[in-house]
Amino acid sequence: MIWCSASQGVPVSTSEPRNTKSPRLDFLEIQPLPTDKDPVPDKPVTAEKRETAESMAVRQRDISISEFFSKNRHLLGFDNPRKALLTTVKEAVDNSLDACEEAGILPTLKVEIHQLEEERFRVCIEDNGPGIVKAQIPRIFGRLLYGSKFHTLKQARGQQGIGISAAGMYGLLTTGKSIAVTSRTGSGKPAHYYEIQIDTRKNRPQVITDKVVDWEHSHGTRVEIELIGTYKKGRHSVDDYIRQTAIANPHCEILFSVPGCDTPLHLQRASTTLPPEPRSIKPHPYGVELGVLIRMMKESSTRQLSAFLQRDFSRVSSRVAQEICREASLKPTANPRSIAANEVERLFKAINTVKIMNPATNCLSPIHEEQILAGLKKEIEAEFYTAITRSPAVYRGNPFQIEVGLAYGGSLPADELVDLMRFANRVPLQYQQSACAITKAVLGIDWRSYGLSQSKGALPIGPIMLFVHMASAWVPFTSESKEAVAAYPEIMRELRLALQECGRKLATHIRAHRRAAEEAKKKSYIEKYIPHIGIALREILGFSEKSENDLVGTLKDVLERSRSK
Amino acid sequence: MIWCSASQGVPVSTSEPRNTKSPRLDFLEIQPLPTDKDPVPDKPVTAEKRETAESMAVRQRDISISEFFSKNRHLLGFDNPRKALLTTVKEAVDNSLDACEEAGILPTLKVEIHQLEEERFRVCIEDNGPGIVKAQIPRIFGRLLYGSKFHTLKQARGQQGIGISAAGMYGLLTTGKSIAVTSRTGSGKPAHYYEIQIDTRKNRPQVITDKVVDWEHSHGTRVEIELIGTYKKGRHSVDDYIRQTAIANPHCEILFSVPGCDTPLHLQRASTTLPPEPRSIKPHPYGVELGVLIRMMKESSTRQLSAFLQRDFSRVSSRVAQEICREASLKPTANPRSIAANEVERLFKAINTVKIMNPATNCLSPIHEEQILAGLKKEIEAEFYTAITRSPAVYRGNPFQIEVGLAYGGSLPADELVDLMRFANRVPLQYQQSACAITKAVLGIDWRSYGLSQSKGALPIGPIMLFVHMASAWVPFTSESKEAVAAYPEIMRELRLALQECGRKLATHIRAHRRAAEEAKKKSYIEKYIPHIGIALREILGFSEKSENDLVGTLKDVLERSRSK
Repeated sequence: MIWCSASQGVPVSTSEPRNTKSPRLDFLEIQPLPTDKDPVPDKPVTAEKRETAESMAVRQRDISISEFFSKNRHLLGFDNPRKALLTTVKEAVDNSLDACEEAGILPTLKVEIHQLEEERFRVCIEDNGPGIVKAQIPRIFGRLLYGSKFHTLKQARGQQGIGISAAGMYGLLTTGKSIAVTSRTGSGKPAHYYEIQIDTRKNRPQVITDKVVDWEHSHGTRVEIELIGTYKKGRHSVDDYIRQTAIANPHCEILFSVPGCDTPLHLQRASTTLPPEPRSIKPHPYGVELGVLIRMMKESSTRQLSAFLQRDFSRVSSRVAQEICREASLKPTANPRSIAANEVERLFKAINTVKIMNPATNCLSPIHEEQILAGLKKEIEAEFYTAITRSPAVYRGNPFQIEVGLAYGGSLPADELVDLMRFANRVPLQYQQSACAITKAVLGIDWRSYGLSQSKGALPIGPIMLFVHMASAWVPFTSESKEAVAAYPEIMRELRLALQECGRKLATHIRAHRRAAEEAKKKSYIEKYIPHIGIALREILGFSEKSENDLVGTLKDVLERSRSK
Repeated sequence: MIWCSASQGVPVSTSEPRNTKSPRLDFLEIQPLPTDKDPVPDKPVTAEKRETAESMAVRQRDISISEFFSKNRHLLGFDNPRKALLTTVKEAVDNSLDACEEAGILPTLKVEIHQLEEERFRVCIEDNGPGIVKAQIPRIFGRLLYGSKFHTLKQARGQQGIGISAAGMYGLLTTGKSIAVTSRTGSGKPAHYYEIQIDTRKNRPQVITDKVVDWEHSHGTRVEIELIGTYKKGRHSVDDYIRQTAIANPHCEILFSVPGCDTPLHLQRASTTLPPEPRSIKPHPYGVELGVLIRMMKESSTRQLSAFLQRDFSRVSSRVAQEICREASLKPTANPRSIAANEVERLFKAINTVKIMNPATNCLSPIHEEQILAGLKKEIEAEFYTAITRSPAVYRGNPFQIEVGLAYGGSLPADELVDLMRFANRVPLQYQQSACAITKAVLGIDWRSYGLSQSKGALPIGPIMLFVHMASAWVPFTSESKEAVAAYPEIMRELRLALQECGRKLATHIRAHRRAAEEAKKKSYIEKYIPHIGIALREILGFSEKSENDLVGTLKDVLERSRSK
């Protein structure tokens, strides 16, 4: 077998052993190699020539991002009618909450789902946010990859500027109807009403209607989308999403009307305090890559390397900048735009050898232990609750923070897989559970050591509701539909530590609970016999009834004291 | 509780019951609703106003697709150094194989991985394909979403025109080095050498070097990328990918050199016949959506509705076109560009009521049962093999075909989870196993009824290697990194049927095997006593040794005949 072991030649990491089930390679017979002169046969070996470089070139062309996503709509969460309805509501609600919070407004949302035909719905989401400037309305709702959050490093629900225009595009594709937007930026301003269709060939908005309307609200935005969908209750439902959103966003008020229900559901604010507004930060030097560093230096407005490092990165003081330059053997006064390629590489290596403070974490806004506990306690009748908010950590230069809540026992079913609620930047994640770093972290823990049962490769079984939240300036989702978090090692580590901490607390509770139960059982046995001892002693020693009662009382006292230690 | 039951008002589908673990909603107190006049509070309720519509508008802007993917590179399979190396090889190999097959050339590939530093590699992939026309080289390697396969409906490995430019972009980001491409389209033509860097802000190529070079090959393409990566053997390794590629592409020859190995591995062709070239097809009417239909009609070059239906769709004969028009109450001679919105909707509904032949399936090129069996038999020492190629089916108008192979027993370990090899359009899928429709289908089958053991929510346990292939004109991957297939109901159904068919064959084998084993056990018991019967009879009846031997022989004969029925 020619497959070489790693021990020959250059050292190669082989820490992961070859899977024992890996089939053999030796069936692939070893043949004398073609000579170096002609390793590639000179001409087509078989078959009629079907295509040439020229005939292929004719068909090679640009693909617009909207064409791409309209064909790959499952990437955005429009795989099926049921998910499409949920995704549409979700994208609009996420945007509304982000806008309200950015403007310092306590969010009040109206979410309406009107059923037009069996599979045809009109979704309306209205907020009391700051509204949208007229010129931006068509771009925001009629163009994929357009937005304000992509180039900013801070915690937000939206990231990429795709979601709501994709929902509008899906509506257009399935029903031919425009997305309708009403928006007003203040009481002195007019309310604008737009009907917009995305031109998928160009990824540009086509404005169908543009007029000023009367609107009873002084500021806010209302989005209406008609689409093919399915409305169902249960797991992965819009109802579930709205309920979980209310749990993770206690400062938010939601009026929610669904088909088949006359009165809208009114989810009250549980808190009138807005979460502290996360601040946007500059990239951290540890997260930067060589290629990005080269581009940043080319594009920098600074004239000196030291100033570049201090101004374009976070956590680089004058002292740190000097140290980096010294390590890289570069002058702090050098012009960043005229540094040679090999010098940039030295700079890059130097950055990673100098100790730099962790990124600022005021770009994060975690939910916090008390709020998680409050949410769980309101939610679930259990006998034991615990919650952990880990300190912020960093992956690829991005700060993030993991929080875990756990409810155990009580009304939760004891013989089912644990119920896992996943959140990212306060947004409930509904689909792709198995692909998510959160799920992988839960699966990777040996829950049997915390007193639960668990089969190989499966979630543990027990009366447990797990709440896991990742807050980050940039959540690395596994797809644009933002349903699962990618498993970066740093994230997995924090998840594991948080879950283990909750697990240990749970184990202590389960053990104590078991001991207490056994204790109580023993006690009840002994208690049962005390009156009989009283009776026997009275008969043998001729005690009065009072002495007997005293004795029984004393014995019970002693039992109480000795057994409750 | 105000949450209404579905029985009130409009009928709503509730086939999926509310999850029993779903927490209660009644903690959310019901309050009098705000009046209709003012459902949204008139002004900000708390906090200083932090942002306004105007201040937000300043930051709202375009995001280029390359910026998007460079920040979201895990979507493309560049999550970590190890996966990045695999993805780079994979994208280049996929392109090479596609190009060779399209040009009718038996592919010979050279795959070289050179280790430069501990985590720095230079990957070179060379093919004997048709080459690339000079003008197209920078676009194909320096621009995301550029290619020939996106707008064509036929089975191909590449689909979206992202892969190889993304690999080049990753190399540039992590090492600052250009992607280097050498290509030649024929012996009379010059070989062009390019060094290209993608400008991520604009998603456009920057040509660093462009020259004519001497090249020993008359046609083909060589791609070189320097990148940060990790080379490891074992599961998810490049070695595994190359091996599985050879299995699913027996017509392909690969020379593979890896770090730490002096002689390249030579994977020989197992067949000198190219798979039949899949033909590209027009979209099928059943898969079209209202919005797409509207656009197609607007853009059609035909003047008559009937001609439009016949020319722009597959499987629409003149008779079918007439029938659709009649169902929609539209004139077959109407101009498709001047049909009103509500008329298009009628046409759309009519299409789905008329019986139309399934799409042509010559756009598919399955591997076929014999080839799968041959691959498995070469691969694995097992006692039982089976394979199924299902007839083509259709999801969202796209034809697809499912194939399953299974090897059981022999050298496979009996007490581990089954080993699942997944393929899409002959490309092995390495990551995201749990998110894949293939895995979900395997999990969804009750393997215990086929004689295997299986825990809740886990793969079955047993000495089994499963090979599952999906061939399609458009594989719906769950992400751009093409690691998992999306779970469309039609795909899940075909997967289930194919797996069940293999399962039943396996069950028959296991049962027969078990019966045979028990039979053999009984036989061996009886056989043990026959000589003793002979001895006893000789002693009692005074037999000669010959009679005894005859008797023993006869008894053995009888046993053989009666027990082997």
